[in-house]
Amino acid sequence: MLSKSTICDYTTDLFHCDFTGHLFLGNLGNDMLNVADRHSSERGYGVTYLQTLDATWVVSRLAIEMERMPVAHEKFTLETWIESAMRFFTSRNFEVKSSDGNVLGYGRSIWAMINTQTRQPMNIFDINNGVIKDYVMPEKTCPIARPGRVTMTDDAEFAGEITVKYGDLDVNGHLNSVQYIRHVLDLFTHEWYENHRIQRFEIAYVSEGHYGEKLQFYRQTVEEGEYNIEIKRNDGDNCVVLCRCKVKFVNN
Amino acid sequence: MLSKSTICDYTTDLFHCDFTGHLFLGNLGNDMLNVADRHSSERGYGVTYLQTLDATWVVSRLAIEMERMPVAHEKFTLETWIESAMRFFTSRNFEVKSSDGNVLGYGRSIWAMINTQTRQPMNIFDINNGVIKDYVMPEKTCPIARPGRVTMTDDAEFAGEITVKYGDLDVNGHLNSVQYIRHVLDLFTHEWYENHRIQRFEIAYVSEGHYGEKLQFYRQTVEEGEYNIEIKRNDGDNCVVLCRCKVKFVNN
Repeated sequence: MLSKSTICDYTTDLFHCDFTGHLFLGNLGNDMLNVADRHSSERGYGVTYLQTLDATWVVSRLAIEMERMPVAHEKFTLETWIESAMRFFTSRNFEVKSSDGNVLGYGRSIWAMINTQTRQPMNIFDINNGVIKDYVMPEKTCPIARPGRVTMTDDAEFAGEITVKYGDLDVNGHLNSVQYIRHVLDLFTHEWYENHRIQRFEIAYVSEGHYGEKLQFYRQTVEEGEYNIEIKRNDGDNCVVLCRCKVKFVNN
Repeated sequence: MLSKSTICDYTTDLFHCDFTGHLFLGNLGNDMLNVADRHSSERGYGVTYLQTLDATWVVSRLAIEMERMPVAHEKFTLETWIESAMRFFTSRNFEVKSSDGNVLGYGRSIWAMINTQTRQPMNIFDINNGVIKDYVMPEKTCPIARPGRVTMTDDAEFAGEITVKYGDLDVNGHLNSVQYIRHVLDLFTHEWYENHRIQRFEIAYVSEGHYGEKLQFYRQTVEEGEYNIEIKRNDGDNCVVLCRCKVKFVNN
């Protein structure tokens, strides 16, 4: 049997960094999703296998909390493991460490499995005789808070609008989980990032975005440096929420 | 002495693919720039060392021509080498191969070295006693055309506008070379990409984009499936060209 967790070695790509010289959080999120994909694929419940069953993984929540973001060319490791698995949800965590073994940060995510035809939830334990249970590691700690409920109130301000383009789409033809993060972080200014870094970012994916849709961003200040952000779409009379985020910045 | 070329192993990350399930060209461009960075860093003329001399590399032209783009989870190798080095320009090529050794495509790029204070060109041979000359490989073939001159005529149509955001910036605080590609490819529709793939993409970087600038995209059809695209900025009375691209599509 394979090890319960997967550890991947990374070197912070220069062209994956933001203007402060640190890894762009969206790219770290991307790395986490890719490591998750590799971990599940190697253990018999990855998306390629799921496709043969008209099933796929969808990430429902993601939280990333960093003490320090790697800088350009810095080596780091990214470890992922399953904290728990239930019939309809599995909790997967991440640990980011520097090459000298110091923890740089953690991630937490919640995943569901859906039928790609009906979009209905599927029983995770039906896959490969519940093989996922063999890899659950409840004993490994992840000392950051679980993704919570982001509650928007009526005084949220309109903060911007985008139209979903070709480069925003993932393999399922939906707005890529990482592009949500990119567009949300793009709401803050260059000047803001000169003086602040992201301490915690969390996102709850609610519904899917599609090509050509116009999406509206609403933002409200929770407290100094902490913001709730919601992405919505107007469907005629309906207002559909695509995701809710919370971003907590600290001074540099 | 290190080998003249660098070969890196890649697995096509699921979250780096577009909705057709193939690696997104912008991400392949990103991989090329990163492999270039690794190759030059390991050989004594990388950007980290250059920073100590107030110097940096800037990519001036990039052309990518693909027979086939890797699909999700597919392994591939990316090799880079210096074809030639002159005082003010160096030509660096790329070869993309599948895991069974078949060529998937090639890249060509032209780089200049500039002083980060004055933005003036610097003599590449001044770095580390002209060490770059030790790694020139004129004997290795790269059978795709060199990046040519893209000429726009007056009948180019306005195709879109963006504002440069935080997530568009590279470590130098300029519009990231890869984000140019992303925004250009975003000019084409989902329907178009359902029926066409990019056979060749080339870009000539002319001037730098900065945070908050509004950039206009102009497009003209050269022939069926072949487009010239120019990104411009209005600076009061002046119209500054940021880059010119040529994209050639073929039917799927």
